[in-house]
Amino acid sequence: MTDNYLTVAVESLRGFGQSAFASVGMSAEDAATATDVLIRADLRGIETHGMVRLPVYVNRIRKELINPRARPHIVRETPTTLLVDGDRGLGLVVSTWTMDRCIAKAKEMGSAWAAVRHTSHAGAIGLYAMRALAHDMIGICMTAAGPRVRATYGTQRALGTNPLAVAIPSATEPPFMLDMATSVVAQGKIETAVMHGEPIPAGWALDPDGQPTTDPERGLAGDSLPLGSTPELASYKGYGLALMVDLFCQVLTGMESAPVRALARPLSHGQPVFVGDPATPLPATPFVPGHFFAALRVDAFRPAAEFKAGVDQTLHSLHAMPHDGNGPVRTPGDAEHRLEEERRRHGIPLHTQSLTWLHELAKELDIPCHLPGGS
Amino acid sequence: MTDNYLTVAVESLRGFGQSAFASVGMSAEDAATATDVLIRADLRGIETHGMVRLPVYVNRIRKELINPRARPHIVRETPTTLLVDGDRGLGLVVSTWTMDRCIAKAKEMGSAWAAVRHTSHAGAIGLYAMRALAHDMIGICMTAAGPRVRATYGTQRALGTNPLAVAIPSATEPPFMLDMATSVVAQGKIETAVMHGEPIPAGWALDPDGQPTTDPERGLAGDSLPLGSTPELASYKGYGLALMVDLFCQVLTGMESAPVRALARPLSHGQPVFVGDPATPLPATPFVPGHFFAALRVDAFRPAAEFKAGVDQTLHSLHAMPHDGNGPVRTPGDAEHRLEEERRRHGIPLHTQSLTWLHELAKELDIPCHLPGGS
Repeated sequence: MTDNYLTVAVESLRGFGQSAFASVGMSAEDAATATDVLIRADLRGIETHGMVRLPVYVNRIRKELINPRARPHIVRETPTTLLVDGDRGLGLVVSTWTMDRCIAKAKEMGSAWAAVRHTSHAGAIGLYAMRALAHDMIGICMTAAGPRVRATYGTQRALGTNPLAVAIPSATEPPFMLDMATSVVAQGKIETAVMHGEPIPAGWALDPDGQPTTDPERGLAGDSLPLGSTPELASYKGYGLALMVDLFCQVLTGMESAPVRALARPLSHGQPVFVGDPATPLPATPFVPGHFFAALRVDAFRPAAEFKAGVDQTLHSLHAMPHDGNGPVRTPGDAEHRLEEERRRHGIPLHTQSLTWLHELAKELDIPCHLPGGS
Repeated sequence: MTDNYLTVAVESLRGFGQSAFASVGMSAEDAATATDVLIRADLRGIETHGMVRLPVYVNRIRKELINPRARPHIVRETPTTLLVDGDRGLGLVVSTWTMDRCIAKAKEMGSAWAAVRHTSHAGAIGLYAMRALAHDMIGICMTAAGPRVRATYGTQRALGTNPLAVAIPSATEPPFMLDMATSVVAQGKIETAVMHGEPIPAGWALDPDGQPTTDPERGLAGDSLPLGSTPELASYKGYGLALMVDLFCQVLTGMESAPVRALARPLSHGQPVFVGDPATPLPATPFVPGHFFAALRVDAFRPAAEFKAGVDQTLHSLHAMPHDGNGPVRTPGDAEHRLEEERRRHGIPLHTQSLTWLHELAKELDIPCHLPGGS
């Protein structure tokens, strides 16, 4: 980590996050749930979805875009499926609530699916998929976002960066945990480049004129490309995956679909830089994401211990393969797993900019802040 | 189509396929099922998985690698899951059988998952996912293959091209049907380039020395790259998706996992060209794929008619978007849907090389062949 980072103990962050959420009306239980999601993102190195987002979420609650007292409830149910109304609650809380009910249903029935409508940004979705692991289940999570990614041959924003996450349990190897935007990169990676003042590789984004750019601010103001694209051609595979996520999370939940919104309001360029910045104005009509979850018992197919030993063998085989010097060969989630172990012991490095925002938030909320940094 | 194609009526192909499969011991019912899968692939323009594969499958039956009299049966079951033993049967038949049972279970319970072990190559997997559509369900199918795709930083073959397919019903628009290899391109596209004597784009494959190549024969003999890769860096996203498919289809079914095989037998280069060619020798120990399926009732979340109208609106919005001149913007499966309608009326163009192989097969099996071409 560079000089711009200060290491913070997990407990300090937890205390501050809980007070901040509680101060805008959340129950102690929900404040704890939400804070844990943010901290776990930071523990696993997902900086863009960690404590840096706390001011964003708190501000949305203060602007009454998010209901701090939401009570998610089931509005449609079959033996293996749930449709949850999130009561306009915080995505971090609603998603945790829903995934846990999906897991409970899967425990009974072998597998289950759950969808949420009337919720808000879910944060790092891999964390919900991972809730299945301790139950010897495979967990899946998807969420959609507003238009920013082009369709193949299209010349405007059509779909969100629509991530999907799959977690698969192992025995002693770090579990398989794939959490990926269906765009070339997540928007957060472009935002981080802005924060660090670094250029982005050509191929991550197009500028507002539709030309490949290495300027992250121009890239954020322009369009993103779907996974698998070259700067010349938007891939139908990444585009297809993003569309699949939109159909699950938006259309199957009865929420607004990004392409429908995009066609009705095509002039979506010029989005301000870095949504992590609390000063970033909100869009007049924010895109409300839906979330989708699944849980599947592995012992429906093989005894769990046998399956997890098999997963270990596969992951170990990859780790042991010859590599090009940038290796060793990694498996999805292994680096994050090791980082989490290390940071639980030694604390979380936070960017000084993020810490400044947290101190500013404390002043606005009139709550104590014992975090380092600030000014 | 070029001069190298002859148009064949669907009924002629059906009759010939059924006789060929029946002549090597398959029941009339199974022969009809298998032939229908091959013909539907050709109807939808998936040439590499169409009738050109008939001699390959028939030869594998004759070499006793596939059991023509297989009786797939359920070996493990929960209220929402099935594990099927394919009895070493033809993947086209076993997959159809399993997906239909998965759909029946989902009809009752809201959703279901099914896995198959001891099966064989499934053909165009999107066709099984599509079986869910008529039941107002979302269908999912995955299958794994032997090592040919590199892991990020890895310098040898690690995973299969491991496709996944998702079909989502619509009202009047062609249904959403994404069927994609998790590699940059399916192996079949490189094989087709060999058959047509055309170069491949750099970035599709590496030659046996690990260098990017535009020579399809060198690319087939070398390694493929995962979806999202540049020639310099194998993408962790495509690699992660391929690994996910292997964990579902191979490890969860208790079959051989590609990375485990790859590490034990790394010298997998030098594979002969074009598996469609019946003269291609089989590997000494063929990789036996598993298949995975899921079905999900859309009315578990919204009334089906309402959902399908929503899907229409999303797909229509994409079709109506401004494009770069190569458009219109398409949606996954729409071109294949239109092609199928056209080819059902006017017949299927088959490459003369494929027709020659079918005539040769007829001679070997001593069955009549009324198809055009041959010599």
